Amino acid sequence: MSEHSPTYRFDTDAAVHPIADVSGHYSADLTDAWHIGDKPNGGYLLAIAARALGAAAAATGAAHPHPITVTAHYLRPGSVGPARIETEHVRTGRTLTTMTGRFTQQGTERLRLLAAFGDLDKATGPSALLGAPPELPPPDECIIRPVGDGPILGIMQSLEIRLNPDIGWIRGEPSGSGETTGWLRFVDGRDPDVWALPLFADAFPPSIFELRAGQSWVPTLELTVHVRAVPAPGWIRGRFGTRFLTNGFFEEDGELWDSEGRLVAISRQHAMVL
Amino acid sequence: MSEHSPTYRFDTDAAVHPIADVSGHYSADLTDAWHIGDKPNGGYLLAIAARALGAAAAATGAAHPHPITVTAHYLRPGSVGPARIETEHVRTGRTLTTMTGRFTQQGTERLRLLAAFGDLDKATGPSALLGAPPELPPPDECIIRPVGDGPILGIMQSLEIRLNPDIGWIRGEPSGSGETTGWLRFVDGRDPDVWALPLFADAFPPSIFELRAGQSWVPTLELTVHVRAVPAPGWIRGRFGTRFLTNGFFEEDGELWDSEGRLVAISRQHAMVL
Repeated sequence: MSEHSPTYRFDTDAAVHPIADVSGHYSADLTDAWHIGDKPNGGYLLAIAARALGAAAAATGAAHPHPITVTAHYLRPGSVGPARIETEHVRTGRTLTTMTGRFTQQGTERLRLLAAFGDLDKATGPSALLGAPPELPPPDECIIRPVGDGPILGIMQSLEIRLNPDIGWIRGEPSGSGETTGWLRFVDGRDPDVWALPLFADAFPPSIFELRAGQSWVPTLELTVHVRAVPAPGWIRGRFGTRFLTNGFFEEDGELWDSEGRLVAISRQHAMVL
Repeated sequence: MSEHSPTYRFDTDAAVHPIADVSGHYSADLTDAWHIGDKPNGGYLLAIAARALGAAAAATGAAHPHPITVTAHYLRPGSVGPARIETEHVRTGRTLTTMTGRFTQQGTERLRLLAAFGDLDKATGPSALLGAPPELPPPDECIIRPVGDGPILGIMQSLEIRLNPDIGWIRGEPSGSGETTGWLRFVDGRDPDVWALPLFADAFPPSIFELRAGQSWVPTLELTVHVRAVPAPGWIRGRFGTRFLTNGFFEEDGELWDSEGRLVAISRQHAMVL
């Protein structure tokens, strides 16, 4: 890092620090700059946890610098203030280093994690894609989510999200497509990297809002992110969709595409309608 | 269980037994009746692990009898013979009981697991589906995967899989759709239940065979199954698809539908082309 590096909010707010004398344990300090309503966004917690797990994987000496697959079970919401991430090294193989983790605050576990790290620069196998980045008007012709009488979105001070104007739920008319697309980047100009992708995978408004009328709190039970490539600088385009709402449970499948049109991550979460 | 209950192979081969004096630890004994090539199918391992985790969740007294979301990281292949599943109770909340587990054989860990259990009979929220079961000819007009010069499929003595005759890769002509559909049931007449779904989620031939020419060993790195409903008796219809192969990594997304046309599970795995 050069001495002239600017300080970006994500790097400060999602920083993790090794706890002296406890190998594999990290501290973090959550701010209120990533809130949905009165709680930190789940993707923000996941990003912090992924950084701690990645730091612990690196500390084992494994040459696996990138998150490849990260799964979190959301046990309880997070809150502003100190957090502790306790990691355990499971295995280092040729392709992956597998880690588990517990994300706690005030002694109470918030997330349980299972993750694997690898080296995306060494992934040289074949490619074949049946999908493409979402077609979107330029960011300045897209729309900012209106807060209206919904929850206050503190996260909007940190993330710039420009939604496809086609989205109907914003006008109270969900199309039924279950799909939300849009642009995403950090407000302060920080470029995306692999550590931002777990955050970005949970930052859009819930795609279920476009499936059916009625917006409610939709807690994430489980979220898995598969990182496919190191993103290029610039905007990320996201596509999030829900196809199956069954008895209150639903999935949200995400795709994140970088400014060069490459797929950088896919995600799936299991959530419920309250 | 009535004294007249027949003994089904899955119930014997995927049985788990509490290990005396070690709370939360279970033993199992893998047979060769679920092989792909010379190794037990990954879904078979997952089914055994899910049963152990479910038994351990029940032993806590939680009223959460059904697997809701199960994630496995595949560390090493399994083998015929004894296995041990060491579980840990993470949390019981109102909706879910969260568990972790280690699946070991000969002292070597094969799978690391993170799972949540709940009560599907108490899921009474709204439903909205954008998909439907795959359209298929009747099972006896579908096709049995030819073994040819590929791996010997020991699993075919236990599972009856009837593939859509549209599938091109069987004739050496993958359509590029990346999709495989077909029927699935136990050979011996055992009806599907929630415990069979983790097995069924990994039992079809890899959908990537229909995306591109060239069949190779495609090891599963991570598999997550979301169970949505208790299946009705009869055939299960499966749809498995791969849309994004990037530098050798790909996802396989699955849907399992029961004989009454209900979605009973979705799955996603992260795998690689060797």
